[in-house]
Amino acid sequence: MGLRNEMIRCAQAAKGASRVAAELAAKQKNKILSKVAKEMLKQSQAIVRANQKDLAMARARRLTDAAMDRLTLTPDRIKHMAKAVLEVEKLSDPVGRELAAWKRPNGLRISKVSVPLGVILIIYESRPNVTSECASLCLKSGNAVILRGGKESFHSNLAIVRVYEKALRSCGIKASVVSLIQTSDRNAIDELLQLDELINLVIPRGGEALIRRVAENSRIPVVKHYKGICHVYIDREADLEMAKKIAYNAKCQRPGVCNAMETLLVHRDIAEKVLPDLGRIYRNAKCEVRGDALTRKYIPWASKVTEKDWATEYLDLILSIRVVKNMEEAIDHITKYGSAHTDAIVTRNRMAAETFVLKVDSSSVMVNASTRFSDGNEYGFGAEIGISTDKVHARGPMGLEGLMSYKYVVRGNGQVRT
Amino acid sequence: MGLRNEMIRCAQAAKGASRVAAELAAKQKNKILSKVAKEMLKQSQAIVRANQKDLAMARARRLTDAAMDRLTLTPDRIKHMAKAVLEVEKLSDPVGRELAAWKRPNGLRISKVSVPLGVILIIYESRPNVTSECASLCLKSGNAVILRGGKESFHSNLAIVRVYEKALRSCGIKASVVSLIQTSDRNAIDELLQLDELINLVIPRGGEALIRRVAENSRIPVVKHYKGICHVYIDREADLEMAKKIAYNAKCQRPGVCNAMETLLVHRDIAEKVLPDLGRIYRNAKCEVRGDALTRKYIPWASKVTEKDWATEYLDLILSIRVVKNMEEAIDHITKYGSAHTDAIVTRNRMAAETFVLKVDSSSVMVNASTRFSDGNEYGFGAEIGISTDKVHARGPMGLEGLMSYKYVVRGNGQVRT
Repeated sequence: MGLRNEMIRCAQAAKGASRVAAELAAKQKNKILSKVAKEMLKQSQAIVRANQKDLAMARARRLTDAAMDRLTLTPDRIKHMAKAVLEVEKLSDPVGRELAAWKRPNGLRISKVSVPLGVILIIYESRPNVTSECASLCLKSGNAVILRGGKESFHSNLAIVRVYEKALRSCGIKASVVSLIQTSDRNAIDELLQLDELINLVIPRGGEALIRRVAENSRIPVVKHYKGICHVYIDREADLEMAKKIAYNAKCQRPGVCNAMETLLVHRDIAEKVLPDLGRIYRNAKCEVRGDALTRKYIPWASKVTEKDWATEYLDLILSIRVVKNMEEAIDHITKYGSAHTDAIVTRNRMAAETFVLKVDSSSVMVNASTRFSDGNEYGFGAEIGISTDKVHARGPMGLEGLMSYKYVVRGNGQVRT
Repeated sequence: MGLRNEMIRCAQAAKGASRVAAELAAKQKNKILSKVAKEMLKQSQAIVRANQKDLAMARARRLTDAAMDRLTLTPDRIKHMAKAVLEVEKLSDPVGRELAAWKRPNGLRISKVSVPLGVILIIYESRPNVTSECASLCLKSGNAVILRGGKESFHSNLAIVRVYEKALRSCGIKASVVSLIQTSDRNAIDELLQLDELINLVIPRGGEALIRRVAENSRIPVVKHYKGICHVYIDREADLEMAKKIAYNAKCQRPGVCNAMETLLVHRDIAEKVLPDLGRIYRNAKCEVRGDALTRKYIPWASKVTEKDWATEYLDLILSIRVVKNMEEAIDHITKYGSAHTDAIVTRNRMAAETFVLKVDSSSVMVNASTRFSDGNEYGFGAEIGISTDKVHARGPMGLEGLMSYKYVVRGNGQVRT
């Protein structure tokens, strides 16, 4: 009961703070963010020291090199983090926008106005810069945020949250607009996920296991993507040079991210023309290829692909390739094995492109572009709080807009219903 | 396990059908809806006969007169239902709208295009016309719908769904775009609510108990409002004639609905001028009044209001009244006891109105208009599938737009990420 009460108190404080945050003028929010950036640079050494505590414990726990790297904060990375806060400051204020307005025959003027969601709970894993990213975006969008980071980055996260707290206080705001869950009790998450009357949205950021655990236990709406099994389909009428460039980029430019391609689908009529070259390209990139029988005809060193491969997010230099007899088969494959994240077609045929766009039910559909563009910054949102493969609320890369709701405002001059 | 499998099969069929529905052209959907309206009139007698079976059972179960009335279908009501389908036909197609479009510096053209949500589950109580309302709106918006009506209206619902099935088949569509859960097993709902990979959205329509049960057991996102505790605040600078008209209308015009006023808040500086008249008005309307001490000073026949009253949705000719010392106190009252449904201010002071609009965190905020206007039809949506007091996905009255999601379409000419 101690933990439950502690979490309720924390969420109640955040709910109260969300009313303060919602009413902050754009100027005030920008002033706070600018103070955050300054304070972050000023406290750079303190943050590095806090981070070193985390790194020492991580070393003792024998984290992988990749995990250690994600966890590490250097003065340079802190500079970058402060710069990112200033980028958020520059974004236009998403609160109070008139999304639509119209007048009714009875004279009522109705407008749909953007308002903050309220309290956002972010549950994330080791990268401590997520702390600042999320805090700045929630603040800019007039929301209060409750942060629950991984225990590996606890001291780093706390040092970063202290920077936000100091900036808020120096602007006269005492409310818990940005708060960090400090208990190490793993049940804290489950307690928070029950508080649907206090918290408006949960965004889990991390591996599939974390996200599933959150989604399965939450009474609060969750926006999420479990994984990114992204496809590129090379159509019969593709520009083959373009196709090779895209197929290389989508897989190899940064294989460890959710918008990297995991499966390449090739129309059988051009398989002979494109697969041998692609085989060379992937071999040079040290990318393992797992293919069906026809693929292996053109890339003899490829290993046999299994049913399981089609449904696997490798997040690595591994690619599965299937030769399909037509676009329908490609779309069926994507429907069956895809994760509705991002799928691309390479084709010069406009009708094929439009059919693909219509029939592929994914949050982002690309025509003649790499799946790697599916990203809030690449879409011009200026920031990304997450990517959703759900259909409710926000879908695809989410910027500030994903943190907004709206209200209807109806202005009359005494109208009553008859 | 039998029930679970049956529900999974039903949801899988709906998911398959949702792909068919999503690709239907506006013309096809309108043709189907027009056939539905025709067929409904043609089968009017059969529907009445089915309804009589329900009525006979309801009589045996001793339903209240009000419940019997809600359940009853007459040839006239069926005509009205068919007409409502034609109204939905006339609405513009919400699918495939370009919600936004922009070009990136690298030449990528990004557009945000509306797409159907997929499969909608509607859980509702006795009124059988909800069956047709929901089926027509889901069809128009390119969604598949699973309907779970109350057992009292089972035969009526089935007869109405048969009309939709026949119209769909006659247009060559065999898929389960509109389906009705036919088992009487009450656990069917709980089984369906687990199928978050097959069903995209749940809309419970009915009493608070039903809605709470759905929200508590669902792994699928739910849009809902538990209740409507709507307030009217009469400001010190209100036009008093307007205030009385609105305060009467909001309470008495139709007290049994969610957008009727339950609590009236009156600024103390004008209480003396407005409450005695309102007392007469409510007495003439046979509306019971429960007031705080100051209210009872001006309406001596009013009974004492209790803390519980402030949080009660009467849905009846009962009103609680509180005299507040200023607008802040009114807003605090609304924040504490309101249900974020609809709240109104009556004032001539523009600044007061804008402060109220900003600070009242409800899905609809009215200025100088009756709360009764909070309604999809009154907002000009042409139809209403529900009202949401949640902040995620849809908020306030929901028309076709509330049944839509979107996808990002990115068109390039070979762009890759560097």
